[in-house]
Order: sequence, then structure tokens, then C-alpha cells
Amino acid sequence: MKKQIKSIVEINENSLSRYFSLFIQALILISIVTFSMETIPDLEPQTRSILRAVEIFCVIVFTIEYLLRIYVADSKLKFIFSVFGIIDFLAILPFYLSFGVDLRSLRALRFLRLFRIFKLVRYNRAMNQFTKAIKMAKEQILLFFFITLILIYFSAVGIYYFENEVQPDHFSSIFDSLWWAIITLTTVGYGDVYPITVGGKVFTFFILMIGLGIVAIPTGIISSALTNSVDSKDQE
Amino acid sequence: MKKQIKSIVEINENSLSRYFSLFIQALILISIVTFSMETIPDLEPQTRSILRAVEIFCVIVFTIEYLLRIYVADSKLKFIFSVFGIIDFLAILPFYLSFGVDLRSLRALRFLRLFRIFKLVRYNRAMNQFTKAIKMAKEQILLFFFITLILIYFSAVGIYYFENEVQPDHFSSIFDSLWWAIITLTTVGYGDVYPITVGGKVFTFFILMIGLGIVAIPTGIISSALTNSVDSKDQE
Amino acid sequence: MKKQIKSIVEINENSLSRYFSLFIQALILISIVTFSMETIPDLEPQTRSILRAVEIFCVIVFTIEYLLRIYVADSKLKFIFSVFGIIDFLAILPFYLSFGVDLRSLRALRFLRLFRIFKLVRYNRAMNQFTKAIKMAKEQILLFFFITLILIYFSAVGIYYFENEVQPDHFSSIFDSLWWAIITLTTVGYGDVYPITVGGKVFTFFILMIGLGIVAIPTGIISSALTNSVDSKDQE
Amino acid sequence: MKKQIKSIVEINENSLSRYFSLFIQALILISIVTFSMETIPDLEPQTRSILRAVEIFCVIVFTIEYLLRIYVADSKLKFIFSVFGIIDFLAILPFYLSFGVDLRSLRALRFLRLFRIFKLVRYNRAMNQFTKAIKMAKEQILLFFFITLILIYFSAVGIYYFENEVQPDHFSSIFDSLWWAIITLTTVGYGDVYPITVGGKVFTFFILMIGLGIVAIPTGIISSALTNSVDSKDQE
Repeated sequence: MKKQIKSIVEINENSLSRYFSLFIQALILISIVTFSMETIPDLEPQTRSILRAVEIFCVIVFTIEYLLRIYVADSKLKFIFSVFGIIDFLAILPFYLSFGVDLRSLRALRFLRLFRIFKLVRYNRAMNQFTKAIKMAKEQILLFFFITLILIYFSAVGIYYFENEVQPDHFSSIFDSLWWAIITLTTVGYGDVYPITVGGKVFTFFILMIGLGIVAIPTGIISSALTNSVDSKDQE
Repeated sequence: MKKQIKSIVEINENSLSRYFSLFIQALILISIVTFSMETIPDLEPQTRSILRAVEIFCVIVFTIEYLLRIYVADSKLKFIFSVFGIIDFLAILPFYLSFGVDLRSLRALRFLRLFRIFKLVRYNRAMNQFTKAIKMAKEQILLFFFITLILIYFSAVGIYYFENEVQPDHFSSIFDSLWWAIITLTTVGYGDVYPITVGGKVFTFFILMIGLGIVAIPTGIISSALTNSVDSKDQE
Repeated sequence: MKKQIKSIVEINENSLSRYFSLFIQALILISIVTFSMETIPDLEPQTRSILRAVEIFCVIVFTIEYLLRIYVADSKLKFIFSVFGIIDFLAILPFYLSFGVDLRSLRALRFLRLFRIFKLVRYNRAMNQFTKAIKMAKEQILLFFFITLILIYFSAVGIYYFENEVQPDHFSSIFDSLWWAIITLTTVGYGDVYPITVGGKVFTFFILMIGLGIVAIPTGIISSALTNSVDSKDQE
Repeated sequence: MKKQIKSIVEINENSLSRYFSLFIQALILISIVTFSMETIPDLEPQTRSILRAVEIFCVIVFTIEYLLRIYVADSKLKFIFSVFGIIDFLAILPFYLSFGVDLRSLRALRFLRLFRIFKLVRYNRAMNQFTKAIKMAKEQILLFFFITLILIYFSAVGIYYFENEVQPDHFSSIFDSLWWAIITLTTVGYGDVYPITVGGKVFTFFILMIGLGIVAIPTGIISSALTNSVDSKDQE
């Protein structure tokens, strides 16, 4: 009996297990859509009660699935405190705590479970290669992150001195200038704050010239790591 | 007779075939330009009738070309249901159905035919290498696409909680927030919606730091795949 | 005599030639700055006459330099119709034709001459490698350019159908929509035109998902070509 | 005695030295935060005096640290005129000169000191590889920077001729157009200035098509250099 449930709940090559996992994934998608729809203002009461019913159904199924997974796990404690075990728990917890909506968005985390399937079925090689590349580039990525933070802070301090007097509303303090620095260096450029003084514009030019280089670095790092991870695999 | 037409209509090294294909390509361009011009409001009736005449001429030529291609095809059914056969059919269908403008934009698809020429004449190696690189990176690109979707959804949920109360017009539901998430993570940044709360701005900072990395990944993947596809070719 | 002038005017290792080329380069810079300054509105008459004097001085020196270069050239005709010969001629032509400002901006082209120096002195290897990489990737870059054009046209047609009715001012024709498509797919995102309908936003999402990939491709191509050009150099 | 202080102040494997360096780093962070907070307008006098006290404490500690570092240095002059020696001096100088806030932002430069630790402890390999990659690509990066400057100048001249008459406020001179050129070519796109004429829009299209390629080049260079620096390391 337990063995049979295990063969369905856990990932296997048999068709029942595949249907079960497809059913759960469909339910995750439905639960995410209903969660998103509940945030629409001025919903009709009827729609709201339908969404609520779908919500209850999802949570019940997820709860049964969670209990089944604990039941069939070789080591129950190990499953409960594993990443997927915690995600499964957090996905149903908010409903029972009647916390309302706050934590329900965590249900999206359940989507991460799909990775487990990918890992087994198809994305095995891609994931391995990717993890390897990230691991190889870990130190460089940290270094880049640190350099980016320093660059953003310096940009914020610089633009503050140039623009504070002319635009006291938009560049009222260094914290406000940080917002400008982030939006500019990532090249998002909403256009809510921008320099208007000549000094500020020249300063922005130099910051962007360096910033473009900074944006180029992580791409180079990951690309280089991926190339090398494939190369080293080839040599095995 | 059939053999002679075949040598003109299908791609060959003789000059007649080259002139024919250049003529068709020029007509595709003209037909795209007239199609675009018809959408200009307040056109003079004279201009409109000229455009209409050009349109009719193009469709007649395309129809003759389509029929000739069927006539010379070794296997008529195979050509009709091939990608280029369907494109050729869809390019003339809307005119005969008097559907008006809706499907005529599909004529642009005929441009894809140029690839066939590229493939034979010049772009053979580039296309092969590129297809190989895409095929090699298929799993990784799918994986990245999936991660991007999850990231966009999380960003939308996060910004909704931060900005909904302060800007109920711009972040009225998670679906509205999704628009912000897409425009921000792709660094387009129109500036129609942006966070104004401190929490929303700090959240945007973290999302962008991760987002920059996500944008860097497909570049790394394709670049890595291209490098490797060339490497493996060198070793042959 | 001619030999001595030649050793100064053309690039050589002796110090006189180096001073001469530095002097010309400084004059190019000055001439670009004065050209830019003349466009400032409401200049005082005194400033304007100074700028005019600098302008005349620059043109006289450039003319003497041009004549000297013809004088010392081994083949006079070959120099006159070479790229640098034409640039040198166009840089002084507008002044003599009294065309005013229109063509004077071409003087910036003279800066290209610096490349000649780079080639000899320092940037020899970098330029060679770069030219090699571009040559290797030429077909792929053309292919990418072609795909980008098709993608931009399709985006413009798509957004036209979604937004034309709601925003007839911003998306009045496919030509207007092309502007939106370019600004969005390059992730510039000025914010002067953006979709407001749900359909237009969803369409933008898909276009951007593909667009990000398109932006990633040339980077991958150039990066791959550079890596391979270095690799093949190493094996020599 | 001197030897003991040296073992604490300079980077070593013993725990006292580690605590000392953590303490200094924490103080740098605190000093940056207080410096940023002081720029917030309308602070209460009480808050301001607390910030002032923290500031004085930080400067005293930094001064003692600076003097200790001179004391324990093998060659005092060499330390004073080293990069870190000058940074340490500049970090405390503004306070004593009562210059006020202007130079205090330089304290952030002290963060660069962290690199020294990274170099020794963890980021040794990453930094080495990175420095090597930058050194290899130095000529190419300079070349790209030069091409970018020429491209930006040309874009500014071009857009000036297209937009000056229609938008004399936004494109009043070539210097104003330069601002547009920088913001557009880096794809920031604030939306404060953008072309509105058909000519200006078509010109922007061509500039962006080339600009995308330019942005792609440094990424390719760094990525290529990183790949090669790893490759050459592997072969050792």
C-alpha cells in the first residue's frame, strides 16, 4: 500500500505518477491565477465566492499531498526540513492561520518543484552545467556585486552634490539619490528623476560609461564560466 | 516546358532564376510598404486608389507565382503543406476572402523565404552554426525562460503589496503589477508606472540586481553555445 | 626637401613627425569644440568672432596639411581618392564653398585618422583581432540585422492593431508604431508612447521576451568570434 | 611591542587582527550611513547631534588607525604615498580642515581596503583572473571607448540638425544634443528629450542599430578575455 502511494507521489517513470504530478502542477497554476485575480478591485461577490471555493479545493489537495509525501518519505524529519518540504508547508500554512493573503504568494514557490522533475527527466544536463558555471563564478559574481554597490553609492553622492540645490524635491538626500543611481545604472531610466544641471549631466555621462562596463562584467563571467564548464566536461 | 519554368521559379544558379527571385523580393517589399501606407489616416482618395492598384498587381503576381510553384513541385501536396507553401497561400488568401487588412500583414512572412536563398547562396554556414547553437542551448533557454517567468510573477506580487495602497490607480491588481515587472526587468522603463514608496524602491533595487543577472544568462548561454559549436566544428 | 617633409607629415618614429601629428590632432579637437560652440544660441558677437577666427586658422592649417600630403604622396591620385584623402578634402571643402555649417561636422571624420596611428603604434593587435572577429561574424551579423528588422516590423503591425483605436494620436499608422517598436525592442523606453490596452501589454510582453533574446544574439556572436579569433591565433 | 601592534593592524591569520579589521570595516559602514543621513533635510537637532558624535568617534578611531599604520610600516614614506595610505589620509582630512561635508564622501574609498582582505583571504583567484582579463583587453577597451565617443558626437550633431528647429528648447545646441545621445545610446531613455520629427526618428533608428552593436562589443571583449585567461591558466 505505502509502496504503491510512494510510486505515485514521488517521481517515477510510470504513467500514474506522471498524471499525479501534472495534476498538482495544474493546480499550482490555477491557485496562482486565482490568487492574482483576488487582488482585482471591485470584483463581484459571485466571482469572489467562486475564487474562494477554488482556493479551498486547492489547499485541501495540497494538504493531502503534503501528508502523503510525509507518509511515504523514507526519513520523515528529513523531508519536513528539506527545501521542498518547507515550501509545501508554507504553501498551505497561510490558509490555516487565516493570515489572509500575505503568505499565499509563497505558493508560487511550489513551482520550484518543477525543477525536481526537470532535473530527473529533461533538464538534468542543463541544470548541472548551470550549477557548475555558477559555482565556478561564485567569487567573481560576489566581487562584481560588491563593486556595483560601491559604484551606486558613489553615483548617488556625486549626483546629490550636483542636483540637490536645483532639484531639492527629487534629490533631497543621498537616499533619494540612490534611487536615481539604481534606475540609471541598470539603464531602466523611468524618467521620474534625472539631472538637469550641466555638472550633473557630465557626471551622469562618466557614470554611465563605467556603468555599461559593469553591466558587461557579469555577462562575461557567466558566459566564460559556461564555456569553461562545457570545455572541462568535454575533456572528461 | 515544365522543366524550364522549374529552373526559373526554383532557386538556381542561372541568371533568369536570380532575376525572378529578385523581382519577387522587390514586390514583397513594395507590398509591405503599401500595406503600411494604407494605415496612414486621412489619405487622399487618389493615393488610396494608387495603393489599391499596386496591391492588386502584387496579389496577381503572387498568385501566379504560387500556382507555378505548385505546378513545378515534385510532390504537389508536400509543397502545399510545407512552411513556405502555407506562407505563400496565406499571403494571397486575405485578398480573395476580402477580409480586408487583417491577415495581409502575414505577407511579411514571405520575407522568410529569403532565408531559403541565404541558406543556399551565402548564409549556409552561419545558419547551420546558429541552428546548432540554439539546439545545443535549447534546454538552458527553456530553463531561463521559466526562471524569468517566476521572477516576473514574484516581482509583481512584491510591488503590489508595497505600492497598492499608495498608488491604487497604477498598481490596482497583480495583473497591473505584472506590466510594471515586465517593463522594469527588461530595463525598458517607460516611466508610466514606477514605485514611490521607500519599501517599493528598495524592493525594486533587489529585483533589478537579480534581474540584471537574469538578463545576462541567455547571452551567456547563446555565446557559450556558439563558441562550442564552432569549437566542435574545428575538431572535425 | 620633399623627403624631409614626407618624414614629418607621414607617420614615422622621429619626434618631429610625432609633434606634427599631435598638433593636427589637437587642432581637430579644437575645431570640433568651436563647431559645437557655434550652435549655442544667443552667443555674444565677440565670442562669435573669436570662434570664427579659430575656424579660419584651423581651415588654413588643414588646407596646408592636405596640400603637403598630396605633395609627398608617392601616387597623388591614389591619395586623393583614398578614404583619408577624401575625409581631408571634405573637412576643408565646406569652408571654401561658404556652405556654412552643414558639412563642417564631417571634420569629426578626421578623427578616424587616429586609427592609422593606433594601427602603427599601439592598437595594432587589438585592431587586427577585432577586424578578424567582425569578418568571421559578418554573415551572422547580417542575418541578425535582418531578423531584427522583421521582428521590428511585426511588432509595429501587432501593436497597431491593439492600440490604434484607443490611442489614435500615438499609434496613428504602422509608421508611427515602428517608432514604438524600435524604442521598446532596444529597451530605450523614452515613455512618449506605450501600450495602454490589456491586449497591447500582453503583446509587448511576448515581443520583449523574444526581443531580449535578439539583443543577446549579436553579443554572443561577437564574443564567440573574438574568442575564436584569439584561439586560432594561439594555435599558430 | 611594535611587532605586536603590527600583527594586529596589518592583515594576518590571527584572530585579534581579524577582529580589528572587522571593527574598522563596521566603522566604515557606520560612517557612510551617518554621512548619508546628515544629508536628509529637516533633521531634528537631537538626531543631528547624535550623528555628529558618531562622526567624531569614527574620525578619532580612523586617525589612531592611520597613525598606527604609519608607525608599524616598514617604510613610512612608502605607506603614506601608497594608494591606501592616501585614502586613509583623505578619509580623516576633511574633518580636521572643517571643510564640512564635501570631501567626507571620500570615506567610501576606504571600502576599497576590503579588496586587500579579499585578495588575501578569498578573492585571490577571482581578482587575479579579472585583472589578467582586463590587462589582456586593455587595448580593445580603449579602442571601444574611443569609438563610442565618436559615435556619441556624431549622433549629437545629427539629431541637432533634425530636431533643433522643431524643439529649440530641448536641442538648443550640440552640447544639449550630446545629453540626448548619451541617454539614448546607453538605452537609459529617461524620456526628458526625444526626437519628434520623422527625420530625427529615422536617424535614431540607425543610431540605435549601430549603438546596440557598440554596447555588445565590450561584453564580448571582457567575456572573450575571461575565457582566454582561464584557458591559459588551465594549460599551465
